[in-house]
Amino acid sequence: MIIKMKKGSSKNQYKKVVDFLESKGLEIKDVSSEQVTIFGIIGDTTQIEPFDLYAFEGVGDVTRVSTPFKKASRSFHPKDTIIELPNGLKIGGDHFTLMAGPCSVESEAQLRTIAKAVSKTGTKILRGGAYKPRTSPYSFQGMGLDGLKLLRKVADEFGMLVVSEMMTPNLLHEFNQYVDIIQIGARNMQNFDLLKMLGKTDKPILLKRGLSSTIEEWLMSAEYIMASGNDQIILCERGIRTFENYTRNTLDISSVLAVKELSHLPVIVDPSHAAGRWEMIENLSLAALAVGSHGLIVEVHHDPEHALSDGAQSLKPKKYENMVKKLQNIAAVTGKDVQ
Amino acid sequence: MIIKMKKGSSKNQYKKVVDFLESKGLEIKDVSSEQVTIFGIIGDTTQIEPFDLYAFEGVGDVTRVSTPFKKASRSFHPKDTIIELPNGLKIGGDHFTLMAGPCSVESEAQLRTIAKAVSKTGTKILRGGAYKPRTSPYSFQGMGLDGLKLLRKVADEFGMLVVSEMMTPNLLHEFNQYVDIIQIGARNMQNFDLLKMLGKTDKPILLKRGLSSTIEEWLMSAEYIMASGNDQIILCERGIRTFENYTRNTLDISSVLAVKELSHLPVIVDPSHAAGRWEMIENLSLAALAVGSHGLIVEVHHDPEHALSDGAQSLKPKKYENMVKKLQNIAAVTGKDVQ
Amino acid sequence: MIIKMKKGSSKNQYKKVVDFLESKGLEIKDVSSEQVTIFGIIGDTTQIEPFDLYAFEGVGDVTRVSTPFKKASRSFHPKDTIIELPNGLKIGGDHFTLMAGPCSVESEAQLRTIAKAVSKTGTKILRGGAYKPRTSPYSFQGMGLDGLKLLRKVADEFGMLVVSEMMTPNLLHEFNQYVDIIQIGARNMQNFDLLKMLGKTDKPILLKRGLSSTIEEWLMSAEYIMASGNDQIILCERGIRTFENYTRNTLDISSVLAVKELSHLPVIVDPSHAAGRWEMIENLSLAALAVGSHGLIVEVHHDPEHALSDGAQSLKPKKYENMVKKLQNIAAVTGKDVQ
Amino acid sequence: MIIKMKKGSSKNQYKKVVDFLESKGLEIKDVSSEQVTIFGIIGDTTQIEPFDLYAFEGVGDVTRVSTPFKKASRSFHPKDTIIELPNGLKIGGDHFTLMAGPCSVESEAQLRTIAKAVSKTGTKILRGGAYKPRTSPYSFQGMGLDGLKLLRKVADEFGMLVVSEMMTPNLLHEFNQYVDIIQIGARNMQNFDLLKMLGKTDKPILLKRGLSSTIEEWLMSAEYIMASGNDQIILCERGIRTFENYTRNTLDISSVLAVKELSHLPVIVDPSHAAGRWEMIENLSLAALAVGSHGLIVEVHHDPEHALSDGAQSLKPKKYENMVKKLQNIAAVTGKDVQ
Repeated sequence: MIIKMKKGSSKNQYKKVVDFLESKGLEIKDVSSEQVTIFGIIGDTTQIEPFDLYAFEGVGDVTRVSTPFKKASRSFHPKDTIIELPNGLKIGGDHFTLMAGPCSVESEAQLRTIAKAVSKTGTKILRGGAYKPRTSPYSFQGMGLDGLKLLRKVADEFGMLVVSEMMTPNLLHEFNQYVDIIQIGARNMQNFDLLKMLGKTDKPILLKRGLSSTIEEWLMSAEYIMASGNDQIILCERGIRTFENYTRNTLDISSVLAVKELSHLPVIVDPSHAAGRWEMIENLSLAALAVGSHGLIVEVHHDPEHALSDGAQSLKPKKYENMVKKLQNIAAVTGKDVQ
Repeated sequence: MIIKMKKGSSKNQYKKVVDFLESKGLEIKDVSSEQVTIFGIIGDTTQIEPFDLYAFEGVGDVTRVSTPFKKASRSFHPKDTIIELPNGLKIGGDHFTLMAGPCSVESEAQLRTIAKAVSKTGTKILRGGAYKPRTSPYSFQGMGLDGLKLLRKVADEFGMLVVSEMMTPNLLHEFNQYVDIIQIGARNMQNFDLLKMLGKTDKPILLKRGLSSTIEEWLMSAEYIMASGNDQIILCERGIRTFENYTRNTLDISSVLAVKELSHLPVIVDPSHAAGRWEMIENLSLAALAVGSHGLIVEVHHDPEHALSDGAQSLKPKKYENMVKKLQNIAAVTGKDVQ
Repeated sequence: MIIKMKKGSSKNQYKKVVDFLESKGLEIKDVSSEQVTIFGIIGDTTQIEPFDLYAFEGVGDVTRVSTPFKKASRSFHPKDTIIELPNGLKIGGDHFTLMAGPCSVESEAQLRTIAKAVSKTGTKILRGGAYKPRTSPYSFQGMGLDGLKLLRKVADEFGMLVVSEMMTPNLLHEFNQYVDIIQIGARNMQNFDLLKMLGKTDKPILLKRGLSSTIEEWLMSAEYIMASGNDQIILCERGIRTFENYTRNTLDISSVLAVKELSHLPVIVDPSHAAGRWEMIENLSLAALAVGSHGLIVEVHHDPEHALSDGAQSLKPKKYENMVKKLQNIAAVTGKDVQ
Repeated sequence: MIIKMKKGSSKNQYKKVVDFLESKGLEIKDVSSEQVTIFGIIGDTTQIEPFDLYAFEGVGDVTRVSTPFKKASRSFHPKDTIIELPNGLKIGGDHFTLMAGPCSVESEAQLRTIAKAVSKTGTKILRGGAYKPRTSPYSFQGMGLDGLKLLRKVADEFGMLVVSEMMTPNLLHEFNQYVDIIQIGARNMQNFDLLKMLGKTDKPILLKRGLSSTIEEWLMSAEYIMASGNDQIILCERGIRTFENYTRNTLDISSVLAVKELSHLPVIVDPSHAAGRWEMIENLSLAALAVGSHGLIVEVHHDPEHALSDGAQSLKPKKYENMVKKLQNIAAVTGKDVQ
C-alpha cells in the first residue's frame, strides 16, 4: 500500500498515520521527495481497508498494490483449481462444462421434457430454480422445496447432476440433500451471512458476479467462502449493469480473462441473463468458449412462451442442440473438451 | 403495456401472444397501421413481467406504461406518508429528520461520547452498526448482539431512538427488541427473503437504495415489504455506482425528486456513503435539504482515525454541530423543520 | 410513438398535444381506458424527438416504437451491406477482415517493420494514427500530414490499404488523397460537423462507437453520414465506459449482435482499445470472430515499450502471427473467410 | 508515479523500465520488500501516460500519485480564479451567477420575449444556441450565424452578455465578434482540435463536462485550453451517463466539490440537461447553490411546447422568476451573492 500525504499536510499528521500503521506491525518505507511526501507500507495489508486511512487528516491518496484476497489469488495458488464432481465430471482446466435447464422448475413433466432434451446433447448438469429472486412480489416465486426434490428426481433419471440457487442460509440442509452445486445469485453476491454459511458444506459453489460488482469484489466474495472453509468455487460472469439497455445486462467477456489472471478458480459464463434475448445466446456462447471460459450455464425451455419466468432468454431444445454442435466444432480446434 | 410486433411477424404469432394475454383476463386494443402491428394491453398488468413476453416469437418491443408497484405508488396513495415514531418524532412532510452516530458500535464509551455530542445538537435518532457488511472477510464484522444492546442503553440515556442495520431474517426478534428503525442496507436491497420477513414487524424500515438499483427497482423492494404487511418505510438515497470514482459512489440527488413524484414514502439522504470523504459531507447535506429530502443519516465519530470502519467518511462532532447550524439557517428560509 | 398522459391531466392538455402532432401531419390512434389516457402516433415520427414532447404539460410517458434511423436500419435495407475496397477486398457478409498496425506512425522505419510483419500474415489493411486524440496536451500528438504520407508510401510497398483517423473536417482533402478508409474515433462519434462533412467523400468510413454511446446513438451517427450522402460505413465496437476499470473499457461484445439485427452495416471489433492490455487481445479477438463480427482492428508494434502511444495494448508481431493462425482455425469451422 | 512489478518478473525487465524512465530525466526510488518489487518515480511525470508503461513486460501496476494537470490544478494556483466579464460581472468566489435563455434561438421575437423575462429577475447573461448538436440529422440544427447576430442584438437591448455553443474551430472569428462567453458542449469536451483553437481567443470559455468524462479528464480538457494560452475557463457540470434513466442524465453534484478541491477554476451547474425534466429544475438549482457551485445555466422558454428543441427541460418565465427568489433567500443565509 502506498500513501501520499496532501500538499501542506503537517509532520504531526504524518506521524499519526505512521504510528498507527506501525502499531499494526507494518513497516514503513519513505520515498518522499522535495515536492511530495509519500511512503509505502510493507507487510500483510489485507487487515487494512485503504479507504479507512482517509480518516487521518493529511492523507491524500491511498493506493493498494497487492490484491486484498489471498486464498482466491493465483499468487498464493498458481495452479488452476479443477473441481471434481460426484460423478467424476471435472470443471476447470481444459474442460468446457455445460449446465442447462429451465429458469424455474414448474412441474415434473416440464422438467423431464427439458432434462431429456439437454441430456441428449451430452449435457450432464441440470439447472433449475426452485427458489426464485423476483423483482416483483407479485411474480411467481418458485416451487420451493418441491422444486428441489423434482430436480433431484429428474436429474437422477438421466444421470445428471443438479445446480440450483440458494437464497437464504436457513435452507442449507435441504440444499445439501438435493443439490450437487449450490448457486449464489447475483443479488446475493454480497449477502455476507449467506457466504459465511457456505463454509459449512462441502458442495461446490457457483458464485455469480453481482450486477455492479467489480472483479475485485467478486473475488472477495469468493474469499469469504474460502475463508469460512469451502474452496470449491466456480465463478460465473452473467453480465453487468451499464448505461446500455438494448441487452438486459452487458456481458463483460473480458472478465473471464481477468479472473483467469488473478485467480486459480474456474470461471463460466451465463449468456442467458447477460443478453436477456434468446436470439443472442448461441453466438455469445461461442464467444464464451473462444475467449477461454470453463463452461456455460444456459436456460432451455421447450415452451418458452408459457414459461413462468425468463422465457425470453430461454433456448428451445432444438436450438440448444444446434448450439452444442457448434461449440464442439470450435472446441475441436481450440483443444477444449466440451462435456 | 404496449406491444409492437416485429416487422415480418406472422398473424399466427400475433394470435399466440394475444390469446395468452386474454387468458390472463387482460383486454387488447389494437392500434396497428399499415407499417406496424402494435397493440395496448388494458387491465392489471402488474402480474406480467414485460421481459417475459419476448419469449413469444414475433414480439418486437414491450413497453410498460404504468408503474409495476402499487402500494408504494403515489397514484394509489396521493398523500405523503408521515411516519410517527414512539417518542412522537415524525418523518416525512415538512420535517427534516437527522440521524447520526458512528458507522460501527465499538464500545460503550465510544458510543456514549458520540451520542452525547450529536444529542446536544438536537439530533434524536442514533445510528450505529452492530452487524456490519464488510467487503473483506478479514475486516471487523461488528459487535453483534452486544452492539445492539449498547445502542439501546446509550440511546435511552439521551432520550434518543435507535436505527441499525439488519442483515439476516434470523435476527428479527432481537432487532424488534432493541431497535426503533430497522435499516436494510444497499447490498441487501434485493435480498427478497429478508424483505418478506419485514412484514412480521411493525417497526419502520429504512430501505437503502442498492448500488446499482434503478429507482423503479428500489420502489419495487419497498413494494415487497408493503405487500408483506409493513407500510412504514423510509427510503434512503446513498449514492450509486458509476464510472466516476473520485467519490466512493455518485450521489444521485435527483432521485429524491423522482421518489417524491412516484411515491408517497419519505426519502432521506446518506451523504457519508455517497461521498466517502468527510470533507464533502457538510455541503452535500445542505444540498440534500435544499433539494427537498426528508432528512439525513450521517456518520459521526470523535476519533475517526481509530474508527474500526468508515472513519474516512465520518464527521467529527464539532463539524457535525456546525453543519446542523447551517442546515437550520437554510431550513428557516425554506419552511422545513430540522429535528 | 406512444404517449401516455399523466393521471389527472386535463382534456385541454390532451387537445394541445394532439393538435400539435396533427399539425405535423401525423395521425392519432387513441387506446385510452377508464384508468389511463393513452394514444399512438402513426406516420413518420423521425421528425420528432420524443423527449421534446414532455414540454407539453400533462404528458406522462413518451415511448418510441420505431427506430429513429432509416438509412442505417435493416428494416429499410434488409440485405447486408458489403463494402468493396479499391483492391477488391470486401468487408461484410462472411468475410472476416483484419486491419493491423501501430497506434501511431512514428517513423518510416517503424512503420515498414510493422507493415512487413502484419502483411506476412495475409493482413491487407494497415492501420496507423497520424493525428492523435490524446487526453493530455503534453503527450505526443502525432506526426500529422507526414504520417499520412508515410502510411500511403509504406502501404503501397506491401500492397496494403490504409485506415487512419481524421479529427477535423479541414483535413478531408488530405485524407481523400492518402487514405483508403477514414476512421472517426470514439471521441468524435458525435462531432456532427465532422460527420456531415463525410458526405463529401466516397471513401468508406470506419465509425467507432463512443465511450458512452448507446447502440441507437451509434447508429444515429451512421445515419448522419448516410443522410449527407455516404453509405459506405463500417461500424467498430471498441469498448464502453462502465464502473469496471480492470480493463481500460468494457468490450460490449453483444453489441455486435445488436448491430447485426438492427442494421445492414458491417461491424468489426477493436480489442486493443477495449482491453487496454495486450495479454487479452488474442482471446478477445477469437471471441469477436466467434460472436459473428466482420473483422478486427488491432494494434501491433515491434517495440511496444518505446511506442509513443498505446504500447500497453499493442501485440508484438510474433504474437499477432500466432493469433491470426488461431483465427484461421476457428474460421475454418465457422464458415468465415479470414483476410 | 508508483510502479509495481509482476510477481515473477525478471531483473532484466526491471532494468528496462528503469532505464527508460531515467532516460526521461526521472529519478527512481525503490521500496521493494522480499515479497514485492516496487518503486516510485520522482520528477515531472506529466510527460508520461501511466497506461503506456504497461507496454513493458513485467510491469504489474502503475499508479499515478500526482494529478496529470498543472495549470488547472489548485496545487499550482491555490487562489480561486475569478473571471471578470466586459460589463464588470464576476464569476467565481462568492458570486453566484445566473445564465438563462432558450435552448435554441428560434426568432427575434422569441429571443426578445425570453430575454426580457429573465433580465427582469436580474439575470445578466443570456444563453441561446445558434449551432445545435442534435442526435438526429433530421432535427432542427439551429439558425447558425443569424442566430448569433440575434443573440448579440437582443442581449445588447437588455444590457446582457451572451453565452453560446461553438462546435467547430472554423467559426472562432464569428464567435469572437458576437459572443461574450464561448461554450464547449459535452459532446465536444474531447474535441482536441477545437480545444487547442481556444488559445487564440481571450473570451472566457464555458467548458461542459462530457457525458462519460471523469473529473480528471474534464480538468485535462481545461488544461488543453490553458496550455494553448487561455486561462479564462468556467467549468460546467451537466450530468453524467449512468444506468439510471428516469432522469436524462445523473447530476453529479459532488463533482462541484471535487472540482473546487482539485482546481481553482469556477464551476457552475446546468440542471436542465442533467434532469431533462422542467419539474426538477428548481429544486436541483437550489441544491446547486447549497452545495457551493458558482452559478447556473438554465433553459427558459415562454412557450416550451413549441420550442424547436429541449422544451421538456425549459422553465416558463414565471417559474424561473419564482426560482430566482428562492435562490436569493438561500443565498442570503449562506453568504452568496446571486447575480
